[in-house]
Amino acid sequence: MPKVTEAHVAERRKQILAAAQDVFSTKGFEPATMQDIVKISGMSRGGVYQYFGSTEAMMRALLEQNTKEFSDYVQSLIQKNGIIWDSLVEYLNSVSKEANTPFSIAVYEYFVSGWHNEERKAYLAKRYLNGQSVFLQLFKEGVRRGEFFPCQPLEVITRFFINVTDGIALEASLLNHQLIDTSNQIDSLKLYLKTALGIDKMNVE
Amino acid sequence: MPKVTEAHVAERRKQILAAAQDVFSTKGFEPATMQDIVKISGMSRGGVYQYFGSTEAMMRALLEQNTKEFSDYVQSLIQKNGIIWDSLVEYLNSVSKEANTPFSIAVYEYFVSGWHNEERKAYLAKRYLNGQSVFLQLFKEGVRRGEFFPCQPLEVITRFFINVTDGIALEASLLNHQLIDTSNQIDSLKLYLKTALGIDKMNVE
Repeated sequence: MPKVTEAHVAERRKQILAAAQDVFSTKGFEPATMQDIVKISGMSRGGVYQYFGSTEAMMRALLEQNTKEFSDYVQSLIQKNGIIWDSLVEYLNSVSKEANTPFSIAVYEYFVSGWHNEERKAYLAKRYLNGQSVFLQLFKEGVRRGEFFPCQPLEVITRFFINVTDGIALEASLLNHQLIDTSNQIDSLKLYLKTALGIDKMNVE
Repeated sequence: MPKVTEAHVAERRKQILAAAQDVFSTKGFEPATMQDIVKISGMSRGGVYQYFGSTEAMMRALLEQNTKEFSDYVQSLIQKNGIIWDSLVEYLNSVSKEANTPFSIAVYEYFVSGWHNEERKAYLAKRYLNGQSVFLQLFKEGVRRGEFFPCQPLEVITRFFINVTDGIALEASLLNHQLIDTSNQIDSLKLYLKTALGIDKMNVE
């Protein structure tokens, strides 16, 4: 048996997950089959199954990867700008540009079509709480730096912020940014944030 | 052939749609079959097919019914209270109590799992625009009665309002009201509304 290095394993996993993301984004999660993914992965059926036993396992691996990237991204936002509000605006601009990706809608499909699947529900709850704790750090940092004077608990502000941005991402995926008027929705969210964070009198965008 | 009265037709349709709503709410939309619905409808297979040829047609009929009921409900809210803000609060209270129904999640499933189905997408766009025009009337009435002094276009406020309440309903269906902290999310929405509608200095709940 050939010796399989760690780098080789990581490379094959990456290759399969790229194929899976591609298939989920074009066909949707539920209609996607292992065969579809094998076909475009450039690997043998046995080779793929050695790494992942199901499309479910592939989606989970993609979500874990996505969670890690998201957390790193928010950390970088905290470090990047002297003013946290600028980081928030940068994030909101990215929402209005990138929300419309087919993979994000495949992720919604995974959770929404799995609403009678207890395991997926539990995973969603974990993901939801994790997303909150990631963003909570950003708002906390704004308070620490003396920018924000919140009139609601930061946890409440964070949850609302995530609800709205997720809602925009979902609506934009199902419809489109023009119909849902994303840029004005983001202005509404900014209006809320300025009030809730006590910065409505500051000279901010 | 027996003469079929209009009342009889309406009664049969109602009976089938009640069965369909039941099945969609327990099994989910995609897994539901015509056979499931026939079984609990108390009618014969041929009888059911005479009215609806597919679960898709049944879901559309349920959505049409739901659109009508929703529009009537918002109209009643406009008439019911002297103060439009009270109607808004009443609606928001209903969101925090009723969002968690399995049928509403089946509706989300229908649209989200149908994201690569152009017909469903077009129907969703129609539904989205209709929901907006229904709520826009309520906000307009608040301006007409001298309650609201909006600092954003009413269309923008309406869209944001719908995004947030839909987001709460979806999150509550997939997770639960406690985890997503619905009552605080609604307080956040009220904070936004008071600012956007220019009633933050009014003595409102």
